[in-house]
Amino acid sequence: MSAVSAQVSEARLWQRHEQLATIGATATGGVNRQALSAQDFVASRQLIQWGQAIGMHASRDAAGNVFLTLPGSDPAAPAVLSGSHLDSQPTGGKYDGVYGVLAALEACEAIHAAGIKPRRNIEVVAWMNEEGSRFAPGMMGSAVFAGARRLADIEPVQDSGGTSVKHALADAAVALDDIVLRPIGGQLAAYVEAHIEQGPVLERDNTTIGVVTGIQGKRTFQVTVQGEAAHAGTSTRAERRDALLAAIDMVQALTRRIHDAEDIVKFTVGRFTVTPNAPSVVPSSVTFSIDLRHPVSAVLRELGDAIAPICQQYAGVCEVTVKELSTAMSLEFPEAMRERIRAAARKLGVSHQDILSAAGHDARYLHEVCPSAMIFIACHLGITHNEAEAITPADAAAGARVLTEVLLELANDR
Amino acid sequence: MSAVSAQVSEARLWQRHEQLATIGATATGGVNRQALSAQDFVASRQLIQWGQAIGMHASRDAAGNVFLTLPGSDPAAPAVLSGSHLDSQPTGGKYDGVYGVLAALEACEAIHAAGIKPRRNIEVVAWMNEEGSRFAPGMMGSAVFAGARRLADIEPVQDSGGTSVKHALADAAVALDDIVLRPIGGQLAAYVEAHIEQGPVLERDNTTIGVVTGIQGKRTFQVTVQGEAAHAGTSTRAERRDALLAAIDMVQALTRRIHDAEDIVKFTVGRFTVTPNAPSVVPSSVTFSIDLRHPVSAVLRELGDAIAPICQQYAGVCEVTVKELSTAMSLEFPEAMRERIRAAARKLGVSHQDILSAAGHDARYLHEVCPSAMIFIACHLGITHNEAEAITPADAAAGARVLTEVLLELANDR
Repeated sequence: MSAVSAQVSEARLWQRHEQLATIGATATGGVNRQALSAQDFVASRQLIQWGQAIGMHASRDAAGNVFLTLPGSDPAAPAVLSGSHLDSQPTGGKYDGVYGVLAALEACEAIHAAGIKPRRNIEVVAWMNEEGSRFAPGMMGSAVFAGARRLADIEPVQDSGGTSVKHALADAAVALDDIVLRPIGGQLAAYVEAHIEQGPVLERDNTTIGVVTGIQGKRTFQVTVQGEAAHAGTSTRAERRDALLAAIDMVQALTRRIHDAEDIVKFTVGRFTVTPNAPSVVPSSVTFSIDLRHPVSAVLRELGDAIAPICQQYAGVCEVTVKELSTAMSLEFPEAMRERIRAAARKLGVSHQDILSAAGHDARYLHEVCPSAMIFIACHLGITHNEAEAITPADAAAGARVLTEVLLELANDR
Repeated sequence: MSAVSAQVSEARLWQRHEQLATIGATATGGVNRQALSAQDFVASRQLIQWGQAIGMHASRDAAGNVFLTLPGSDPAAPAVLSGSHLDSQPTGGKYDGVYGVLAALEACEAIHAAGIKPRRNIEVVAWMNEEGSRFAPGMMGSAVFAGARRLADIEPVQDSGGTSVKHALADAAVALDDIVLRPIGGQLAAYVEAHIEQGPVLERDNTTIGVVTGIQGKRTFQVTVQGEAAHAGTSTRAERRDALLAAIDMVQALTRRIHDAEDIVKFTVGRFTVTPNAPSVVPSSVTFSIDLRHPVSAVLRELGDAIAPICQQYAGVCEVTVKELSTAMSLEFPEAMRERIRAAARKLGVSHQDILSAAGHDARYLHEVCPSAMIFIACHLGITHNEAEAITPADAAAGARVLTEVLLELANDR
């Protein structure tokens, strides 16, 4: 272990996870900390307090992102950024997102404790609304930071209670009114995000560190099937235009066709809403969602493009509209960044392997503006977006040590 | 036309339909008036006001049924009852149910205007929750009145928002607190229900009056499919226990098997509810309704008994529970009652034909406690449980005239 990563404290890092988990704690052991909620502000405030205790400067931007800066000797040079998010799913766990923020803070603790002042600033970030649980879609803060979306695009989005992002951002300005406001975006030297795997691979393979090769692509669709309401007792089969029957034919045909023997394609109909949804009425319309993911962009493109024709083919006597809601092709992180992580793991004697991220992360957007990378640690049984989510203190510390080495090297890079 | 039925006012009857249609009116020309909702209470209140204006006495029972009594000369004799319901489907029309209530009131208007006091009381009734839309199953008020179900059986039933029938009946007691409470049930001389056909036969055959021979049988079921929630991006197809996919396999298999070449079987899945219904989560459970009808009781029994085995067969990696909610075999109204309707139509020179009711009606339960009958009028294209539902003012008045003759004859019967 190097002098600097020896300063990573497994106990402190673990205790901070436990402490943040009390903010928005659920009765059954999980966390419900919605983006820009009071709980989110309390968590941000705690993060800021920890950073300020070692001389880091806090700042925030108009998109609700919160930053802590460890000053370098050349503060005008583009900074090295690291972090993730503090918001959670409604029945989320203690580690998804939080780990990446606390590991980045722990790296700054270690560098500070080792008495090292790197050349570049190192910044810790907590991105706004990664989960997309309160406001859909997710990764809003990083998208706006990276210029993929404008602030004006996200401001009108409302939560289920009718509160807009704009209104919630005004809440943030009040809750964090003493924190310096900085411009959105800016030049960066690099971005590194640590995260729990959210899959079972590392645990199963008994590997400590996952060097993330990239993030699989995702296309989402909304399908609307229009039929006609009719009386369940009197309308004959020949007369009916049953939207439910047409919709299930579509879902079945899609499920049959959009898969592969290797079980790599991820095809999910998660939302399926029937109107008027009354026992004695033939359904007049159905709206359903499609979530399609595949690591190979060409395959994702081909499979996604097949959706509308298949829906049309199975519409029968109904009408169908297929709308693509979001498109994100597969991405690959730069090999040079991945090699830095492998080198750090080798230096520390920690096992590692390449791994693809099936889930989306803020690093998707940062990848568009600077050399980016991700470090995974094992996630027990791959259970996530679930209160039973679990990691080990040793894995958390190992990941933080690798991150410390990588961030310090990037910060001293010319 | 006789002196009494000449007093039926086509204009008044039509105007009252239009007026009730403003209570719970939808933006697209229909009605959403759920049982025991504020809209239902306003409609009941309007009905009561019209009845009281001609000296009828209002009362209600603990099952939420509302009555108006036209006093006879021998008020101790069992009354003649007529009516239907004021509740609607979520995107219902202006006539289903309402017509039977307003035609009965119009008959009382005519008898009152003709200066006739019949021997027996004539009562108009608006049954609680015929549609089964807010609380399943339907025909609750008439079932409790007839003793087919106990009040304690329906009280725990909840709507989709978690409000129980018991709680909603308490709302009714507040909304109609000045209306006299009467005991549930009681001796009746006869029951006659007027209703729109909800099928295309009378219109197609250019017949004014349908003499209803009976009601086809109906069995309703609730199917619950239990799987497991999982992350849409990371869980493989092999690992998933997708409740939606299992449920649609069941619905498809049921639809394929439960039908006949003659298109007599009516099989409908009208309600289909997915949990957690989130785009990025593999569905953990699905609950769906089955509405099965057939005029031949033996066939209904056989087809209904096949449902649970078919669901089990297609459950795959999920678990399935099939619960039968209601069972009603086919019934035939007494020929003597049917002949009274034919005789009245002949007397008035109105065309008529025998017809089977494919839809269920409150008359099903009243048939168990007193001689009952139903009078149908034409329904445009058979479109019903639909905002486009339509009848003509002339047909409405013709049906009310036949009803007037029949009710007066029954009320004067020894």
